[in-house]
Amino acid sequence: MSSTPAAPEVAVSAPSAADKLVVPEGMSKKQAKKLAKKAAKKGGAKQEFENVISFDPPSGTRDFFPEDMRVRNWLFSQWRAVSTQYGFSEYDAPVLENEDLYKRKAGEEIVEQMYNFIDKEDHHVTLRPEMTPTLARMVLSRVRMSVLPLKWFSIPQCWRFETTQRGRKREHYQWNCDIVGISDITAELELLATMVGFFKRVGLTSADVGIKVNSRAILQSVLKASGVGADEFAKVCVVVDKIDKVGREEVVRQMVEDIGLDTAVAERVVDATAAGSIEEFKSIAGESCTEDVADVERLFEFAKNYGIDDWLVFDASVVRGLAYYTGIVWEAFDRKGELRAIAGGGRYDRLLSLYGAPSEIPCVGFGFGDCVIYELLLERGLLPEIPHRVDFVVAAYKGMYGQALEVAAGLRSSGATVDVMLEAGKRVDKQFRYADRVGADKIAFVAPSEWEAGKVRIKDLRTGDSEARVQIDIPVADLANAKSYFEKQAE
Amino acid sequence: MSSTPAAPEVAVSAPSAADKLVVPEGMSKKQAKKLAKKAAKKGGAKQEFENVISFDPPSGTRDFFPEDMRVRNWLFSQWRAVSTQYGFSEYDAPVLENEDLYKRKAGEEIVEQMYNFIDKEDHHVTLRPEMTPTLARMVLSRVRMSVLPLKWFSIPQCWRFETTQRGRKREHYQWNCDIVGISDITAELELLATMVGFFKRVGLTSADVGIKVNSRAILQSVLKASGVGADEFAKVCVVVDKIDKVGREEVVRQMVEDIGLDTAVAERVVDATAAGSIEEFKSIAGESCTEDVADVERLFEFAKNYGIDDWLVFDASVVRGLAYYTGIVWEAFDRKGELRAIAGGGRYDRLLSLYGAPSEIPCVGFGFGDCVIYELLLERGLLPEIPHRVDFVVAAYKGMYGQALEVAAGLRSSGATVDVMLEAGKRVDKQFRYADRVGADKIAFVAPSEWEAGKVRIKDLRTGDSEARVQIDIPVADLANAKSYFEKQAE
Repeated sequence: MSSTPAAPEVAVSAPSAADKLVVPEGMSKKQAKKLAKKAAKKGGAKQEFENVISFDPPSGTRDFFPEDMRVRNWLFSQWRAVSTQYGFSEYDAPVLENEDLYKRKAGEEIVEQMYNFIDKEDHHVTLRPEMTPTLARMVLSRVRMSVLPLKWFSIPQCWRFETTQRGRKREHYQWNCDIVGISDITAELELLATMVGFFKRVGLTSADVGIKVNSRAILQSVLKASGVGADEFAKVCVVVDKIDKVGREEVVRQMVEDIGLDTAVAERVVDATAAGSIEEFKSIAGESCTEDVADVERLFEFAKNYGIDDWLVFDASVVRGLAYYTGIVWEAFDRKGELRAIAGGGRYDRLLSLYGAPSEIPCVGFGFGDCVIYELLLERGLLPEIPHRVDFVVAAYKGMYGQALEVAAGLRSSGATVDVMLEAGKRVDKQFRYADRVGADKIAFVAPSEWEAGKVRIKDLRTGDSEARVQIDIPVADLANAKSYFEKQAE
Repeated sequence: MSSTPAAPEVAVSAPSAADKLVVPEGMSKKQAKKLAKKAAKKGGAKQEFENVISFDPPSGTRDFFPEDMRVRNWLFSQWRAVSTQYGFSEYDAPVLENEDLYKRKAGEEIVEQMYNFIDKEDHHVTLRPEMTPTLARMVLSRVRMSVLPLKWFSIPQCWRFETTQRGRKREHYQWNCDIVGISDITAELELLATMVGFFKRVGLTSADVGIKVNSRAILQSVLKASGVGADEFAKVCVVVDKIDKVGREEVVRQMVEDIGLDTAVAERVVDATAAGSIEEFKSIAGESCTEDVADVERLFEFAKNYGIDDWLVFDASVVRGLAYYTGIVWEAFDRKGELRAIAGGGRYDRLLSLYGAPSEIPCVGFGFGDCVIYELLLERGLLPEIPHRVDFVVAAYKGMYGQALEVAAGLRSSGATVDVMLEAGKRVDKQFRYADRVGADKIAFVAPSEWEAGKVRIKDLRTGDSEARVQIDIPVADLANAKSYFEKQAE
């Protein structure tokens, strides 16, 4: 496919006075209206002014034009392939959810930032901010008939409502993998390996990406020893997660003033998250966390067996911003330190009981957004260029359109992808230009002379230069085997 | 995979007094609350009562559990494959759209039934009711740089807000194919062929499904001759579309009272839509529609060349319910007459100028929902059963979990799909049951005796009966070639 756009097959009027009334890309509606008003004053009709409509999607959202969609499909297919390779099953749910599902696990920024509304039947609903509560709801709706463990994945679009900041979107797609029913760190390990499996698959190495691993359970020991309960702990994690943004002092202030911790305890928490190794962390947390430390150590040990240890880094400062995590948490990061977190996950053993599960059901999972990974892959030159392709373009001589359709049907009968030029009788240079634009391998010319001989002339557009390209007259009755004629020729 | 569910690998508590508080599938929230209150009276704590949460998705929407998702993925992959085979490019856009986009093309039921709301920044937005306006918006945003014709497809989820009726959903997925920039019926024909391509691909024949074809342009001639304009015509089509539901009399009444037509004209319209053939239709419409009739005749002629003529039926009564159609319209239907319309499409040459295009841009397209086709395929026995599958399950002997991970990594290095049993040291019957549940082809037992010899015992679960199944001890260093050991054995 040529990189410069070819001339239109059907002419679209050049920009004129009339199309000042549409809102071009990169122009605000306001600007366009202003322009339109100006035009109206010059004698433009009221009707024309009213024709202004925004061609942009809602604020903070993305359109996927075919060239974007090919990249998105490529990314999603990598996510699907890895998930499948690691034994996960895909599920999905409506993008609309009951608000109640998120209110239940309060204390998070995400609740304030939801894209929520009240529908015409007074239901409080929202575009889902994340997938985990939906997963929890779905698992619970079947908890009596389900066989655990479950290994599920999904690629939902998730939404939030933020006052628009530069480059921050209101929607993104997020690969989610979750394991339900396993309390051992073997589940965390499987999820970490799946994540690494994806990175390797798209050509990233452990020099590009690392995964910081920590245990909230160990941090909780620090607080437990100081008499702080589980609810406060969840709030502490949400606050500590912001330390890079707001600084140590502000985090301590919030813990003391907003959560009600003693200053000494708050400082001990911050000190603990600054620990440089598991050993140091353990010594700050004290004896009560021996088991949790052993879990982290086993995780790192097994990571060696799995061949993913070079991707993992212990980091006591990673707590993640979600209130519902209870155990191991992790965060994939760009080793160059230029990008935001690539993905994050953790154990959330108490979420399902919060929703009404009769007993605790251990869960662990991760979310992996599409925006940062695009940036990283682009920056590393790993985002593939995927042109549109077809095997054949069929072009009809004037008055031969019916025959061209027979040819198209014949070629497709073998499974080939075929694009018919929808206007017969175009000049040959236009036919070639069209074939070039749609990325055709071969072009079939349906013309009277060959047709009378029961044949179609097909030209290979991939071999040699334009002069030396192979062309073969292929019997109409044998079009299903068209490709093999070229293969034989090539031998 | 066995059809009966195996026992849980991790026990989930049996239903007890406590889980009267959750809302089981098939029970309303109200019923569950009632039950919970009852339990509370018997001494249940207030806190337990508050734990009730609905496990259902919002009213009129669907969850896709893995078994549903496999079917959905299968259907979408058929749609994608056919679209690609016919040269269409995939695109997508946010499920949220500006309401303005739909208000612009008023006069449709769809506007009243939108799932719309005002967001926190006072934008009037809606979950998209259909994809065509979005396509129009996207095409217009690039009209100056775009090369026509465009052939685009998408599989959006579309939403509507209806007071819930039996079996009517508020969301569905809808395959959309559109061609922009071609005013000839060659575009209609390509879309009809694409639709037929899908039907054939999934095993349906022209004895199962037909496609009714009509021309709104011809009908318009009837009205034009009586001095009725284009705006009234769009309204007439929306009314006439309901004739099967509300009857001839009511349709005439609406045309007279709501649109302001003379009774004689209204009756002439209804008569025209009852025409049994193109000839009859033409004689009712009169001379002014010669060209439009010729178009329909050419369409049916070319359909023979394309080999899709046995799928098409001329039907003057089909006008489709969307106001924006201007020319040929069509509707795929179940020949048994038991199901609602399967899909519908048509030409809409004026939509883009309505949105502000500087000149008319011809468009034609169809929408094809996922609900009716599921019903039809199920009824015809054509909906495939797609079990979850993996190539290998790896099961670890007690204390051998690290080695099991090495085995899993080795097997995956060839691209095989591998599920690791996340708990080591389970009894052999549990290991087999797990392998059965996840649809494993083979199971690898990681046990000390073989491991000492540098090997792993792998058993083929697909060959012979359970006694006679092939098992081979494969060197750990050669696990990437595990499958080939079994292939050699089979020779």
